[in-house]
Amino acid sequence: MSRHRTFRVGLVQMSSGPDPDENLERAVAHVRTARELGADVVALPELFRSQYFAQREDHAMFDLAEPIPGPTVDRMAALAKELKVAILVPIFERRAAGVYHNTVAITDRDGGIAGTYRKMHIPDDPLYFEKFYFAPGDLGFRSFPLHAGRVGVLICWDQWYPEAARLTALSGAEVLIYPTAIGWHPGEKEDFGEAQFDAWRTIQRAHAIANGVYVAVPNRVGLEHGDVRGDRVEGPGIEFWGGSFVADPFGRIIAEARRDREEVLVAEIDPAMIERTRQHWPFLRDRRLDAYSPLTQRYIDSSSPSG
Amino acid sequence: MSRHRTFRVGLVQMSSGPDPDENLERAVAHVRTARELGADVVALPELFRSQYFAQREDHAMFDLAEPIPGPTVDRMAALAKELKVAILVPIFERRAAGVYHNTVAITDRDGGIAGTYRKMHIPDDPLYFEKFYFAPGDLGFRSFPLHAGRVGVLICWDQWYPEAARLTALSGAEVLIYPTAIGWHPGEKEDFGEAQFDAWRTIQRAHAIANGVYVAVPNRVGLEHGDVRGDRVEGPGIEFWGGSFVADPFGRIIAEARRDREEVLVAEIDPAMIERTRQHWPFLRDRRLDAYSPLTQRYIDSSSPSG
Repeated sequence: MSRHRTFRVGLVQMSSGPDPDENLERAVAHVRTARELGADVVALPELFRSQYFAQREDHAMFDLAEPIPGPTVDRMAALAKELKVAILVPIFERRAAGVYHNTVAITDRDGGIAGTYRKMHIPDDPLYFEKFYFAPGDLGFRSFPLHAGRVGVLICWDQWYPEAARLTALSGAEVLIYPTAIGWHPGEKEDFGEAQFDAWRTIQRAHAIANGVYVAVPNRVGLEHGDVRGDRVEGPGIEFWGGSFVADPFGRIIAEARRDREEVLVAEIDPAMIERTRQHWPFLRDRRLDAYSPLTQRYIDSSSPSG
Repeated sequence: MSRHRTFRVGLVQMSSGPDPDENLERAVAHVRTARELGADVVALPELFRSQYFAQREDHAMFDLAEPIPGPTVDRMAALAKELKVAILVPIFERRAAGVYHNTVAITDRDGGIAGTYRKMHIPDDPLYFEKFYFAPGDLGFRSFPLHAGRVGVLICWDQWYPEAARLTALSGAEVLIYPTAIGWHPGEKEDFGEAQFDAWRTIQRAHAIANGVYVAVPNRVGLEHGDVRGDRVEGPGIEFWGGSFVADPFGRIIAEARRDREEVLVAEIDPAMIERTRQHWPFLRDRRLDAYSPLTQRYIDSSSPSG
């Protein structure tokens, strides 16, 4: 007989404005709301303290980075302790001169830092110039034994990688939480917008199915021009698509936010549901450990296989 | 500039009756139909020559097994040569006394055997007693350079494993083809049927998205009691759910069969679409090869991560 203690995850879907301090205060208010709705663990969107500055490559933006502990983490840790709630705090981390990461600090309900996750997969795409700012994470894929339950933490671009979901689930996570900042290029939205959104949701629902685990995704919402205290990027900007959601271990959406406004979602994580799902679909039992080592290769160059 | 030669995949969604010889003749007719519809590569469902005998554990069923080459493969190889079409021929393979596999033999359009794939992940579940019959495959995850294009072959239960899709895609496959026999336990259909079907389709669409590759799935259809020449299994049977489909590299369904009848689907595989999709969503570029080696572990036993 195993322990089956349920807990509740709260997802903050929010917009960020030009003033980082105002964003922090809005985040604090949303965390309070999530706690009032019963959340035991609250997750904020990726890099919530500013508009998405990586729309351009500009050395001045490194001024937004801060250490752990540091102002944002300290503020959220105090809030965690006050509300007795765990908070996933995404920050632009300054680790050392020239060493910056896209990070989530995890504060448990006692206000202590339970751990950090540094984004492992770093994108680089027009208007998402993250390789300029962030060194790839070096802490691996991990989950954290919080008071409420065991939580796996990943960030945005990680969500396209089945390897990341698998490794985090194998480390014991009951829920994979992906703080995210994803949206449409306005010029592409009409032709590709729906397919992009659907692919994004589909692959994360598939992580839930493949691993028999909950998946929870708080996304940013709203049109942004990377405005940081009035320093903004010309052009059409990015329309962050919201649509934050929670999927159960069967891949079913059990909570979902709209695509055009701020919203706080709360959903229950039930370890008994994980146990039951994995008993009925015992995928973890049949993995071919002996055959997976080429996953550490970039590509398997062609040679005709022998019959 | 790369070569961008399109080709067409044909999927045979079929029912199997009590007589293996009649099933073979029906399969031949369906392959002819697929060829008439323009298919260059035709795939039959898993173990199409008989009803799904693994509903029970019975040593007598080993008599259904046959070698490669053997009667079924020879017949299909002759058909392949006649029609100038490649055929994926799923068989119950007898490799040696006591060594049986769930296999696909691939005949190219010249009638030669281009290779074989032996199912790597073997299920074992009420009414799917495959571990009794089939030794796990030992040929790894592979794709085959056919005249039409490069085809990756996997079988049914493999479809729940992102590792299998990834490795086959990394070997150069332009399409992953999964001959399948999946269905509902009739007693579960009302409560779970739609969610099961949707999870099955979702995880395979996700393989397309994660890897920027086409995915094509020919499934069995119809209610069966594992009837092999009148020797049948008591009980409600399995209702094979059809729903064969092809997804493009963006995970969009581009061809789909109904769930209650035989059908032949044909869809185009366009390597230019693969190239373009992977340029816009460059997931293969950013894989963290240095961090994936624990994928060869069964489970990563918990210890608190250091902060």
